[in-house]
Amino acid sequence: MHTTPLYRQLADYYLSAIRAGTLATGDRMPSVRKLMQNHAVSLSTALQMCRYLEAEGWLEARPRSGYFVRQPRRIRLAPASEPRPATMIDPAQFVGIHERVSAIIAQGQRPVRINLARATGAPELYPHQQLRQLASSLLRQHPYLLTKAISPGGNRELKATLAKRSLDAGISTSAEEITITHGCIEALNLALRAVAHAGDIIAVESPTFYGLLQVLESLGMKALEIPTSPSTGISLEALELAMQTYDNIKAVVVVPHLQNPLGSIMPDDHKQKLVRLCEARQIPLIEDDSYSALASSDRIPTAAKHWDHTGNVIYCASLHKVLAPGLRIGWMLAGRWQARVNMFKYAQTRYNEELSQLIVATFMQSSNYDRHLRKLRATLSAQREQMAEAIATYFPEGTRLTVPDGGVSVWVEMPEQVSSKAVFEAALQKDILISPGLLYSNSNRFNHFLRLNCGTRYSDGLDSALRTLGKIILEARDATQSAAA
Amino acid sequence: MHTTPLYRQLADYYLSAIRAGTLATGDRMPSVRKLMQNHAVSLSTALQMCRYLEAEGWLEARPRSGYFVRQPRRIRLAPASEPRPATMIDPAQFVGIHERVSAIIAQGQRPVRINLARATGAPELYPHQQLRQLASSLLRQHPYLLTKAISPGGNRELKATLAKRSLDAGISTSAEEITITHGCIEALNLALRAVAHAGDIIAVESPTFYGLLQVLESLGMKALEIPTSPSTGISLEALELAMQTYDNIKAVVVVPHLQNPLGSIMPDDHKQKLVRLCEARQIPLIEDDSYSALASSDRIPTAAKHWDHTGNVIYCASLHKVLAPGLRIGWMLAGRWQARVNMFKYAQTRYNEELSQLIVATFMQSSNYDRHLRKLRATLSAQREQMAEAIATYFPEGTRLTVPDGGVSVWVEMPEQVSSKAVFEAALQKDILISPGLLYSNSNRFNHFLRLNCGTRYSDGLDSALRTLGKIILEARDATQSAAA
Repeated sequence: MHTTPLYRQLADYYLSAIRAGTLATGDRMPSVRKLMQNHAVSLSTALQMCRYLEAEGWLEARPRSGYFVRQPRRIRLAPASEPRPATMIDPAQFVGIHERVSAIIAQGQRPVRINLARATGAPELYPHQQLRQLASSLLRQHPYLLTKAISPGGNRELKATLAKRSLDAGISTSAEEITITHGCIEALNLALRAVAHAGDIIAVESPTFYGLLQVLESLGMKALEIPTSPSTGISLEALELAMQTYDNIKAVVVVPHLQNPLGSIMPDDHKQKLVRLCEARQIPLIEDDSYSALASSDRIPTAAKHWDHTGNVIYCASLHKVLAPGLRIGWMLAGRWQARVNMFKYAQTRYNEELSQLIVATFMQSSNYDRHLRKLRATLSAQREQMAEAIATYFPEGTRLTVPDGGVSVWVEMPEQVSSKAVFEAALQKDILISPGLLYSNSNRFNHFLRLNCGTRYSDGLDSALRTLGKIILEARDATQSAAA
Repeated sequence: MHTTPLYRQLADYYLSAIRAGTLATGDRMPSVRKLMQNHAVSLSTALQMCRYLEAEGWLEARPRSGYFVRQPRRIRLAPASEPRPATMIDPAQFVGIHERVSAIIAQGQRPVRINLARATGAPELYPHQQLRQLASSLLRQHPYLLTKAISPGGNRELKATLAKRSLDAGISTSAEEITITHGCIEALNLALRAVAHAGDIIAVESPTFYGLLQVLESLGMKALEIPTSPSTGISLEALELAMQTYDNIKAVVVVPHLQNPLGSIMPDDHKQKLVRLCEARQIPLIEDDSYSALASSDRIPTAAKHWDHTGNVIYCASLHKVLAPGLRIGWMLAGRWQARVNMFKYAQTRYNEELSQLIVATFMQSSNYDRHLRKLRATLSAQREQMAEAIATYFPEGTRLTVPDGGVSVWVEMPEQVSSKAVFEAALQKDILISPGLLYSNSNRFNHFLRLNCGTRYSDGLDSALRTLGKIILEARDATQSAAA
């Protein structure tokens, strides 16, 4: 059902030629006409391929001459390190992350000049005008929308729309199986409360989104951090080992696509194995799929839920990163825990307000949504590339960089002795907000990492902020080196 | 600071004369001019008094002749019984209420002709047009409202407005102390999670709102039901006894004003004693104050929080019953648990969407809000009275009725052998939805009670539904009597 689109197959073909040196920097690419002939593809496929490689930084278009090979500066940077074996965190070493996170979040709550800590795109990357007009028109169509008691169970139209759109991720479901929540974070809360209790161990990716670590802490559950690769996601070997070692793992939580903060995308066979592994051990798998519509490929990656035939996967997602950061609409397919999840949802926050649900449902029913996603993906791809180039230029030697194949951020590994907390504080002095790596684990293992947001249009201000950031990291590195000397 | 307004003092004066028979049915009331002279009050006070007694059913206005005394039919009905002593429920007898509630709610989710189960007024009783216009105008003023990441900590303007409005309830607070939540139900969840754990005992009113019993069940906490009077609220003697008997009561939850379902309003000295009692035993007091703006008096009743000087009272409230049932805006003053509550709120659902908060803040800043409340109170008062009259006319002998001094419902006590579940089912057959008393306790003690909503404008359809309901109850009574014979 899901195959790699033709232009991407073609792009991979030329990319390996560039990587092998067959096509060197400065070489002219075959003309579009030639590409069409050689590969028997359409004009649009040939063009799509060239534009894709251009957005990814491998080609540059010269007016009236065609496309030429270039070496992105950023390929001088190695990708962030793969996890070392045997680095699993014992949940007994669990230390509360909330205080650490709150302290950092509190510091970052004042307005800053350059905000690189966000987990969404800038407001203007989303269809603000269309959504606004929809809101006003829906209010006219439904005069009692704000004063009528909310109909139970979440808006039916939104659930039907989400069910239909889920087909693109390989999920065949129905409106009845969907629970609407306040963002993905409420979905994760409900999922965890449905399958585990205080004191239980939950296997999570390492590094992982600090929001998840906070949820676990607030529910009294313990995170068991499983090594996770910046390219292929959670290590299945380590997870299986963990399952053999700990007999009270009550759930596994993964972000298979554009993992936060790594940006990794799990290969399909990994996802399938993961589903089987959890099923065999009767451990519920919680899948957080909030970013997948931002993957660079033209098709939505297949959800792990696709391979679930027993209801053992709880699928959670949200729209506020892909459609409207100001609306907090999440949703979930709770599989065999649906009744329990609905009970908790009702007792916890009742149902979401109707207006937001209707705005989103109406927008998603139209092709405007597809157009918006295509545009957003292209914009983010170009912005990731520009950020990566700037990082390669301005950050000190020894910096490593993972540029994910989609999403709103890059993952930077600084020289090992540099503390992200120190960089965070120094940057804040310069009115720049970043997301320090130490937020993403209960250990200190990621303290020399940064997650940098690429959701803002590249500008002189941003360029100069990245240059400043590079200097701060250099100074931090030199300071620790002279201290060690 | 808070004294009974003059017109109410005057009304009480004449009411006792009517009750004593000094003024008999059909007697003419002193003219307004006479009232002004006799009591040295203004024209508006005299008029206000007459209109109040008219709305309460004690006077009728005859064109060009003035006000005459009448006997509301409903005073033939005794108020619902006071609780019997020693009827406290042992939490060990705790049985899950959720299944019972869900079954009933599920049955009631199909559209019905007459819905008497609501806990809010009908949509047209709220300022739908003004709120709608505000929404559209705010969207124009803030073009990125829907696509901008939500600013942390809840909307500042709303919090400032709520702080200012709280002065009317005798609460002096600041925006910084307020947490915005998804309805009062999330506030109650956060409050309970902040002060207690699974397995702990929570003292609640009996009967109490089933939503609270569900929250407790979903958190694994146990409800200890304290006898509660339909007129003065929770029994302080029984509560004190309970505190002496059980040493693991971790919180007390009360609705001091227009308690749900009773409609009772705690006298000020009871509230003050309750605050002291909890403080002395270091048991947190959770106050749910969602209905107080609907109290018939022209001033908002003083919150228990008013007497709290140590942060031991967690005050929870919401706006969707008084301002906009379609918006789920709740808020809380978490006292000394504020940091913990904010942590849970962030981890559970992040922050509420901005648009709803701004709509409500803007509306509450204007005098339109006061005008709306005055109108709503008057409408509800008249509707309660009409319902009460109909119940007195149509319901069988032995029916007792508590008509609260405000709010959206009345509390009906049927002959003891009648089951509210049977009445619920028979009524649903006739397309009438009611709220059966068995929802309001983990015991069956309130199975012969009904909560009936008065939030809908009185109509022939409603009148005929009440007549049908009366017949159903009569048949149910006779059926059990003949079965017993």
